[in-house]
Amino acid sequence: MLKGIHPVLSPDLLRAIARMGHGDDIVIADANFPSSTMGPEVIRADGVTATEMAEAILAHMPLDTFVPETAWRMEVVGDPGAMPEVCVEFQEIVSRRAGDFRIAPLERFAFYEHARKAAYIVATTEFRLYGNLVLKKGVVHPHEVYRG
Amino acid sequence: MLKGIHPVLSPDLLRAIARMGHGDDIVIADANFPSSTMGPEVIRADGVTATEMAEAILAHMPLDTFVPETAWRMEVVGDPGAMPEVCVEFQEIVSRRAGDFRIAPLERFAFYEHARKAAYIVATTEFRLYGNLVLKKGVVHPHEVYRG
Amino acid sequence: MLKGIHPVLSPDLLRAIARMGHGDDIVIADANFPSSTMGPEVIRADGVTATEMAEAILAHMPLDTFVPETAWRMEVVGDPGAMPEVCVEFQEIVSRRAGDFRIAPLERFAFYEHARKAAYIVATTEFRLYGNLVLKKGVVHPHEVYRG
Amino acid sequence: MLKGIHPVLSPDLLRAIARMGHGDDIVIADANFPSSTMGPEVIRADGVTATEMAEAILAHMPLDTFVPETAWRMEVVGDPGAMPEVCVEFQEIVSRRAGDFRIAPLERFAFYEHARKAAYIVATTEFRLYGNLVLKKGVVHPHEVYRG
Amino acid sequence: MLKGIHPVLSPDLLRAIARMGHGDDIVIADANFPSSTMGPEVIRADGVTATEMAEAILAHMPLDTFVPETAWRMEVVGDPGAMPEVCVEFQEIVSRRAGDFRIAPLERFAFYEHARKAAYIVATTEFRLYGNLVLKKGVVHPHEVYRG
Amino acid sequence: MLKGIHPVLSPDLLRAIARMGHGDDIVIADANFPSSTMGPEVIRADGVTATEMAEAILAHMPLDTFVPETAWRMEVVGDPGAMPEVCVEFQEIVSRRAGDFRIAPLERFAFYEHARKAAYIVATTEFRLYGNLVLKKGVVHPHEVYRG
Amino acid sequence: MLKGIHPVLSPDLLRAIARMGHGDDIVIADANFPSSTMGPEVIRADGVTATEMAEAILAHMPLDTFVPETAWRMEVVGDPGAMPEVCVEFQEIVSRRAGDFRIAPLERFAFYEHARKAAYIVATTEFRLYGNLVLKKGVVHPHEVYRG
Amino acid sequence: MLKGIHPVLSPDLLRAIARMGHGDDIVIADANFPSSTMGPEVIRADGVTATEMAEAILAHMPLDTFVPETAWRMEVVGDPGAMPEVCVEFQEIVSRRAGDFRIAPLERFAFYEHARKAAYIVATTEFRLYGNLVLKKGVVHPHEVYRG
Amino acid sequence: MLKGIHPVLSPDLLRAIARMGHGDDIVIADANFPSSTMGPEVIRADGVTATEMAEAILAHMPLDTFVPETAWRMEVVGDPGAMPEVCVEFQEIVSRRAGDFRIAPLERFAFYEHARKAAYIVATTEFRLYGNLVLKKGVVHPHEVYRG
Amino acid sequence: MLKGIHPVLSPDLLRAIARMGHGDDIVIADANFPSSTMGPEVIRADGVTATEMAEAILAHMPLDTFVPETAWRMEVVGDPGAMPEVCVEFQEIVSRRAGDFRIAPLERFAFYEHARKAAYIVATTEFRLYGNLVLKKGVVHPHEVYRG
Repeated sequence: MLKGIHPVLSPDLLRAIARMGHGDDIVIADANFPSSTMGPEVIRADGVTATEMAEAILAHMPLDTFVPETAWRMEVVGDPGAMPEVCVEFQEIVSRRAGDFRIAPLERFAFYEHARKAAYIVATTEFRLYGNLVLKKGVVHPHEVYRG
Repeated sequence: MLKGIHPVLSPDLLRAIARMGHGDDIVIADANFPSSTMGPEVIRADGVTATEMAEAILAHMPLDTFVPETAWRMEVVGDPGAMPEVCVEFQEIVSRRAGDFRIAPLERFAFYEHARKAAYIVATTEFRLYGNLVLKKGVVHPHEVYRG
Repeated sequence: MLKGIHPVLSPDLLRAIARMGHGDDIVIADANFPSSTMGPEVIRADGVTATEMAEAILAHMPLDTFVPETAWRMEVVGDPGAMPEVCVEFQEIVSRRAGDFRIAPLERFAFYEHARKAAYIVATTEFRLYGNLVLKKGVVHPHEVYRG
Repeated sequence: MLKGIHPVLSPDLLRAIARMGHGDDIVIADANFPSSTMGPEVIRADGVTATEMAEAILAHMPLDTFVPETAWRMEVVGDPGAMPEVCVEFQEIVSRRAGDFRIAPLERFAFYEHARKAAYIVATTEFRLYGNLVLKKGVVHPHEVYRG
Repeated sequence: MLKGIHPVLSPDLLRAIARMGHGDDIVIADANFPSSTMGPEVIRADGVTATEMAEAILAHMPLDTFVPETAWRMEVVGDPGAMPEVCVEFQEIVSRRAGDFRIAPLERFAFYEHARKAAYIVATTEFRLYGNLVLKKGVVHPHEVYRG
Repeated sequence: MLKGIHPVLSPDLLRAIARMGHGDDIVIADANFPSSTMGPEVIRADGVTATEMAEAILAHMPLDTFVPETAWRMEVVGDPGAMPEVCVEFQEIVSRRAGDFRIAPLERFAFYEHARKAAYIVATTEFRLYGNLVLKKGVVHPHEVYRG
Repeated sequence: MLKGIHPVLSPDLLRAIARMGHGDDIVIADANFPSSTMGPEVIRADGVTATEMAEAILAHMPLDTFVPETAWRMEVVGDPGAMPEVCVEFQEIVSRRAGDFRIAPLERFAFYEHARKAAYIVATTEFRLYGNLVLKKGVVHPHEVYRG
Repeated sequence: MLKGIHPVLSPDLLRAIARMGHGDDIVIADANFPSSTMGPEVIRADGVTATEMAEAILAHMPLDTFVPETAWRMEVVGDPGAMPEVCVEFQEIVSRRAGDFRIAPLERFAFYEHARKAAYIVATTEFRLYGNLVLKKGVVHPHEVYRG
Repeated sequence: MLKGIHPVLSPDLLRAIARMGHGDDIVIADANFPSSTMGPEVIRADGVTATEMAEAILAHMPLDTFVPETAWRMEVVGDPGAMPEVCVEFQEIVSRRAGDFRIAPLERFAFYEHARKAAYIVATTEFRLYGNLVLKKGVVHPHEVYRG
Repeated sequence: MLKGIHPVLSPDLLRAIARMGHGDDIVIADANFPSSTMGPEVIRADGVTATEMAEAILAHMPLDTFVPETAWRMEVVGDPGAMPEVCVEFQEIVSRRAGDFRIAPLERFAFYEHARKAAYIVATTEFRLYGNLVLKKGVVHPHEVYRG
């Protein structure tokens, strides 16, 4: 544990998001997501919810402002217009932590395709279905660099 | 690079100090220190000075308050009373970043013995001789945990 | 995630406690414990408390009945008679999950020595100081084998 | 060995099925199946029959309800309508353990193609020919999570 | 699976006993034995009993005739004169498969010390307590070499 | 060395053919064959001839009866009708050990293509040119399983 | 640290540029560049600027004279004609250290494509945006070989 | 060092050419050749010239007589008819050591394509430009086998 | 296979004896020797006899002339004065290949202690008991270096 | 190959001497030295003489001035007062390249003990006996740092 760094981020996850750069994606996956067969490196976060993880990552990682979409969630199968509670919370966290970004919905298999190209997948044990979120890392501008 | 985290800390070093716990030591070594034969895992920081590295590590790592000595430097061979400029700067950084701690001097080979038991060695390219510092990690108290 | 298995146990931790046998120890470490320099293999559980972890492990692992002591906690430095809240909770969980066992206190450095001989260390991010617990695995008797 | 967990599942297999997610397939292979050249990671289970393995895996792994077919067996070469005894037993286990699912037959080489995309292959030493079964993992719903 | 070779021996176990030589020991461990912390390489055999494993290994491995003791079992803790059913079966298998050898009892911790020097440990899931056996490999004499 | 198992099979080769299943190919290569650049895992057998190796493998491995061709040799370059002495011996061993199978000839580069898809290549130091043989593993039927 | 060798080059980076040959590219990346997902091996240089790194590499590595373009920078997104300060400095360093070469601009995604084919990526923590440079290694002619 | 074996061949190189078979290529590369990005395994031979290496390899490796071309050199860029001194020496060594073979010239990028398919690349520090040679291994006939 | 090099030496064994230096020992072990638990790296030579292996190694490796004993064999257990046929052959090979050296006998467990300090163990499948030999590598003098 | 760096230093050796620090030893070994069983990491330099290697290393590595002895050679066995030609050359190179240092002789087995504690061993193929040299790395003073 360190001062000034979110304690939910494991040492491996901290290293992962520090290595990511502009345009790299990270998937926050729920307990049922097929993380280990997607391809990207998986970092386990058992016992943590997807919303706790979103809070932790967005405490240190900016979102991308160069592209029209920078965050994605999975649509409910058979009910694409539904907005599950966990996704409402994702949107609230993104808005509060990162700014005026709208999380875009993706059909289940399109979400899988997107996840296969991510830099990392964080496998939480979020119990609520559809608790999956992709975040695209943005730029840290020179005036934002930590000088502590 | 991340928000709120010192940019001189590489992803591997960040992971290292996050894994360290109460009482673990880290060595900040200068360009002539025999880092790779000491035994502990070495993290390279070529192009960085030892004082820049001390600033970066102490921005996130507390020092140990359970023991009488928590930081050490190497004595000048043949002139144990000397206080090289780089060590004066170490003391200034420790005092400013960590609090009222005095860096204790250790004779060259005693310093090596101490270094062999450290958790990690960070190999900087500090050019100034005697630019070596050991820091012992302290406790992050519950009220100090980042809640960002 | 699986049916009938505690969801806080990561796949690696599940494998670890399944490989342990009669008399093997596992350490549940708090966020300040120097887990990575103790020697045994470390399994990270960032974002999980030590008490949540004790619940999860004791849901599937019996304690040893062949020896007088089968669980240990760390004494408060400078106040060996104190019983921190987190340790009170450890005792409640052990009593409820495992049976009539008393958690024995160990002085800080004796606790470290004990931890160095464990099979595994689970590194939680329990914020409360002294949130460390060692559990010794017991025997699963033939009539207790799962036949589900 | 652990309490409440099927003892035929080795630590590695337990870890494997815990890592699998919604839609991932696992192959239970008989003693003649070319497991090691299929591609997926192979977990050996020598001395265990395919039906014992099916019992063990289905004790903890739900089947997929999002798709029309969720379990497959290999057709008898030259006699596609035949139903070998081992396959009758597979169907009985699936019905009893998982619910109202029908195991679909696949021609030998189509079965191989399917197996190549699985997450894992469990290599049993089932002696009976055609003792091969693919199972697709389903979702653990929030109300089904173990709270033990 | 191969012709003329016992099917309970996994490929890894077959390789292991083929690599062993005169005087090397192998431990057949029960489900509660602390196999993974003993030191020697562990080969898992979940779902197999210790007596099935003893049959399989002795089908191909001779016992040592150069020494007075060549097989050992663990004494019952607190009742050294007891002879558990599983040990009676071990003796029957050794006598039938290997010849006129008596399995010697060893006190629990002496058995552990012996196991730490073995070439391999085979971790079965024998449920019966005290289902542990050490076998010392003997010589294959020139006239006994397979010429098939 | 083990009882009842051909002594020319090294521990690694024994493990290899035990892992192979129905339809997997193994190449027995001569001293000039480009084994290491073919792709499949290579098991060295320096000092052994290809015919000794064929004897050893066929002592334990059945050939495939599901397909019209189950063994192949390399045609003499520039003289496709020739039948070198080593190939005559291969046919004699196959007939005696495995049954009524005819070894099919393949043109040099077609043989290479076939070899690239094999499970393993055994690199002997057969000196005679064209001392190369591919064998396809068959099924061990339930009544053929070793019960020793 | 060695005599006559630029101290900003870490041992791993020194090895890397020594292994490169005629026509191989190396990327000097800024702190926001997505280095770790590009594919080539990444060598970290946290705490070092891109211009310090360009100085260090060009102290020992010649540029390619066989091709019309031998160095590239990234164009400003949305303002292709802009020439950021860091790129002006790159050009000054190349001209002074390597000779009369002009750094060619590449559109952002074309730069990424170019980077994916490089031999190595050096990840600096240059804070200034667009602080990325690709250099193509040239030939060391016989008369230029060090004879010290 | 061994008796009867050329001392310029390192243990790794000796193993490499012993593993090569009929038709496999080996590249002897000069100091500027981009060996490490070609793909094949690279064996370093710093301090050795390409002609010394050709002498050493041809002392033990026959050339291929089944094909019209069995050795290749790189053409001078811009002057395809030129014959550099180092290539004259290559031809002399091949003729003396291996027999009546002519080294064929290949345009620079065609040479690279050829090199990408080689079994190994030996990276010498031949200073002379165009000091690159590919050799194709031939057959050791039964009467040529060492019987020492 | 190579010209001028003994074909019984595998590529790995060739590399091994090339890496050995003055005073290093190599063990040629028979089929019953406990090679894999001795400690030194084991190179398998299944299907080869110990005398064939002694011929092959001594074709290229000189024996040590700096010490009074340079080769050792194992004494017959219970009959230290016996001289088994295989040892008579060892002596004949050493005398013919290496010169006027006498193979010294060592009691069984003293032989094991000697073997534990060897550089390598070559595990043959010599069937004859006591077919074990240790050879100590000598110096290749400048005038003996291969110049082919 | 790089500008300003001695071409006999391989990329791995360059990395090695760059990682060494004040007081670390490196062994330059001749062709008969038992490099691979000494313990330290071995870097091969086949085809290079020990004197060429000494020239190359001393071109970039300073010797230690903090201790009375900083370079060692092996005494001739049986003639400790002899000074072989290769050692005369070593002394000449050290004096010319490094300054007024005398190479100290060490008896053969004392030399071995010294070598076992070195950071690296460079295995040349120096043919001349007693062509072994140990060098202790010194300090690069701030005013000596390359600023190129």
